[in-house]
Amino acid sequence: MGRVVFIGAGPGAADLITVRGARLLAQADVVLFDALTDPALRELAPQALWVDVGKRGFRHSAAQPAIDALLVRHAQQHALVVRLKGGDPGVFGRLEEELQALAAHAIACEIVPGVTAAIAAAAATQRPLTRRGHGRSVSLNTAMTAQGRLQAGRSADTDVYYMAGRQLAVLSRRLLAAGWPGDAPVCVVSRVGWPDQLATDHRVDSLAAAAIFHAGRPAVVTVGAGASPVPMAASVPAEDALKPTAQPGKPGRRKISA
Amino acid sequence: MGRVVFIGAGPGAADLITVRGARLLAQADVVLFDALTDPALRELAPQALWVDVGKRGFRHSAAQPAIDALLVRHAQQHALVVRLKGGDPGVFGRLEEELQALAAHAIACEIVPGVTAAIAAAAATQRPLTRRGHGRSVSLNTAMTAQGRLQAGRSADTDVYYMAGRQLAVLSRRLLAAGWPGDAPVCVVSRVGWPDQLATDHRVDSLAAAAIFHAGRPAVVTVGAGASPVPMAASVPAEDALKPTAQPGKPGRRKISA
Repeated sequence: MGRVVFIGAGPGAADLITVRGARLLAQADVVLFDALTDPALRELAPQALWVDVGKRGFRHSAAQPAIDALLVRHAQQHALVVRLKGGDPGVFGRLEEELQALAAHAIACEIVPGVTAAIAAAAATQRPLTRRGHGRSVSLNTAMTAQGRLQAGRSADTDVYYMAGRQLAVLSRRLLAAGWPGDAPVCVVSRVGWPDQLATDHRVDSLAAAAIFHAGRPAVVTVGAGASPVPMAASVPAEDALKPTAQPGKPGRRKISA
Repeated sequence: MGRVVFIGAGPGAADLITVRGARLLAQADVVLFDALTDPALRELAPQALWVDVGKRGFRHSAAQPAIDALLVRHAQQHALVVRLKGGDPGVFGRLEEELQALAAHAIACEIVPGVTAAIAAAAATQRPLTRRGHGRSVSLNTAMTAQGRLQAGRSADTDVYYMAGRQLAVLSRRLLAAGWPGDAPVCVVSRVGWPDQLATDHRVDSLAAAAIFHAGRPAVVTVGAGASPVPMAASVPAEDALKPTAQPGKPGRRKISA
């Protein structure tokens, strides 16, 4: 009987995995992976059997009970099974269900945390999720419920929505209904961490326009304090100021203001 | 004129840094680091000048303007300056102020995200922060305001408080006042990711008792859905069930129920 290590691969680029995660991958006998993990990660575990258990990010993934059963079966046959998930396994990763399946068969496991998409999007756009004094809290939310309904509220100084890319117009209306001001800043980042990552700036009341940029791409939507660019200090002469998000020509840093 | 790379070291153990972070550390000329980063990280950058700009986690750190000035000065003298922060730089890391200082001097920078303490604590205790159906949102909060007041609310299915270790009794009262039920689960993890990490279980109304375990240690306090152990599936015979958090004898996994 083997053990299972859940590893957060981080979003997109393979080098956002942790050193611990990379080391354990290199020892794996079997890797069960989702579609949102970078294929380049395979180079870290050429010795392993790689099993694809996901489809495209926000489309239907392999039925969860089938993944649970596969995980158990492989752990019964191999010493080290890695369950590789995009981002962090414990944030919108359905980790609870997989832990339950393993516990039911007395299979030992370990969790290696990862960089979740909200945090990677904030780093890529140089927009800190918390801001001293005016951005003291940040919430991570799924825009889609288990029943497929879109929900949105106003719970923190910065609210981040996962899996919202397909219904940005509805999200805009829900955010307004929840009390967000129409002019509150929104930053949409799709394909976070990938070479074709795209970030666009909006307001809550005009968020619907973001759809044309991000259609068909998994997106993270950040609303509120943490969505705005870092303001220049008032005392800085304009000629000294370099826009902190500007990294022209660098892949993965394309920036459009809409 | 050099550039500055902000790198999230993750909490505690050096191997929770990302592969990208480790690679850039190895190229650094200067590393400005906080006290909460693992000294073992020095081995990744023996060539660099290491400058300590922090004191003990939740005590007073070096004055922020002094850190800003030091960052600018080193970037003007060296090709690659790394600003190493515990956890993720953009989550309660005062990143905004440092970005502003660099922008004011037209110094280019990049941010490498990291594993934030809430996510590492959840992984170490095998408690997913989100739970399908009943834990759809998670918020990260600082318990201490910039003015040194303790604040707490109820904003998501799971609320995580950073920097709350010193005032757990006050936090308990604030959580009750904000509408959390007295019997809502609370998990306190101190020294997240370190070999002497300690995790204890409580209820909102008896959280004050956690103080004796975690006195003098930086702690992360998780409240609500994501704080409870993953329940066994009802159909599993008791003899088959292995407590998912139990990893006896393994350092950093000590678990006490209070």
